[in-house]
Amino acid sequence: MPLLNRRQLVQSSAALGLSASVLARITSPAAASQAKPLPASGRILFQGDSITDAGRDRKSDKPNQAAGLGNGYPCFVAGDLLRDQPALNLEIFNRGISGNKVPDLAARWAADCIDLQPMVLSILIGVNDIWHKLNGKYEGTVADYASGYRNLIEETQSKLPNTRIVICEPFVLKCGAVNDKWFPEFDERREAAVKLASDLKLTLVPFQQMFNRAIEQAPPEYWAADGVHPTLAGHALMAHEWRKVAGF
Amino acid sequence: MPLLNRRQLVQSSAALGLSASVLARITSPAAASQAKPLPASGRILFQGDSITDAGRDRKSDKPNQAAGLGNGYPCFVAGDLLRDQPALNLEIFNRGISGNKVPDLAARWAADCIDLQPMVLSILIGVNDIWHKLNGKYEGTVADYASGYRNLIEETQSKLPNTRIVICEPFVLKCGAVNDKWFPEFDERREAAVKLASDLKLTLVPFQQMFNRAIEQAPPEYWAADGVHPTLAGHALMAHEWRKVAGF
Repeated sequence: MPLLNRRQLVQSSAALGLSASVLARITSPAAASQAKPLPASGRILFQGDSITDAGRDRKSDKPNQAAGLGNGYPCFVAGDLLRDQPALNLEIFNRGISGNKVPDLAARWAADCIDLQPMVLSILIGVNDIWHKLNGKYEGTVADYASGYRNLIEETQSKLPNTRIVICEPFVLKCGAVNDKWFPEFDERREAAVKLASDLKLTLVPFQQMFNRAIEQAPPEYWAADGVHPTLAGHALMAHEWRKVAGF
Repeated sequence: MPLLNRRQLVQSSAALGLSASVLARITSPAAASQAKPLPASGRILFQGDSITDAGRDRKSDKPNQAAGLGNGYPCFVAGDLLRDQPALNLEIFNRGISGNKVPDLAARWAADCIDLQPMVLSILIGVNDIWHKLNGKYEGTVADYASGYRNLIEETQSKLPNTRIVICEPFVLKCGAVNDKWFPEFDERREAAVKLASDLKLTLVPFQQMFNRAIEQAPPEYWAADGVHPTLAGHALMAHEWRKVAGF
């Protein structure tokens, strides 16, 4: 991209005043209807696939470490929370693993969730459940996704009754690897996650809705170059949405 | 750290309401006195030592890439700016290199600054100029730091007259590797950087003042475990201060 000339710079400076309103248009209203704020102490665990993993250093398993939290929304949320809540003993973990689907989470759930006893558990899962199917590497149906995800949550609620669970809506942007073959099945899977949150009265972070609004401000590739993995701008937007909806 | 019990959680939830005021006490007032806002388009370059480097992937030299921006304040600033300014063609680079002192910046300035033609140049340099001296690996004086830094800025102003330069105040926290041997020389070097910004009418981000206020909220180790390298919380605080002072 070329550098801007002086006239463009003046125009850009004028545009600065718009930033707050742009963000307000993209992100959700503050979650005034949330019954209770997230517990602000104890452990916060981010679980999911490559979007959550975000290149984290798997050898760094201690909480609150930038390298161990990766380059994505969990690290942005963690940095801001640790900055804003210095008096609390927050311990923030990322255990997302690239390529994971619901059954992969289930297989490692005891070690990577239950044993950690999070006070807040955030899950973003679903895109590989369809992507790997489209690639011929997996055969799970929408019903498998819905029932497997529900079983995972109900097991968690049984073993960790005091944990607040946050369901992140799976999302794609229509660019890169995401073509017409993804639909309508992707939307059916996405709606299954939304229904799960609704049925079990869990907090839902509406990422798909957020990105749908974001592409009115910049092209899909600006937020997720391959349609699946967010850019830096996309991750920063997700972190802002997560905190806003979660009530922190 | 142990998980909190139910009573502590209630207390913590009550503490949530304090977060905005805690942050307001730590960070600087908005820079209403800044003569002009930062140009919001074109290239933004972060330069410095390990604090800026923050584990960045040196092979990732394209702008706006999380891995190439590292795990520190440049990445946090970049994420938030790219999120908030989707309509602008921002290109954000990190060229901090661990261990660098002023003469190291000077040696690579043509390739790593001038050739990039940034519209905004942010520099944080100084802690290794004293640290390496205390370790017997360097002999530069405070006067060398002041004159070398001034030469670097004046060269930059000559070659890039339209670039807005942001000087970040060098800082240490009194913990970890930072002991009484650092003083008063560290303060003399810090004051040289502040004077340079004042003399040349550059924007100054007062990181030392910010951390001095932050340690009223949590121990020094919470913000920089070894007294030099910020934790995740410290980097997130720096990013917030940088944006606030810079006027973005």
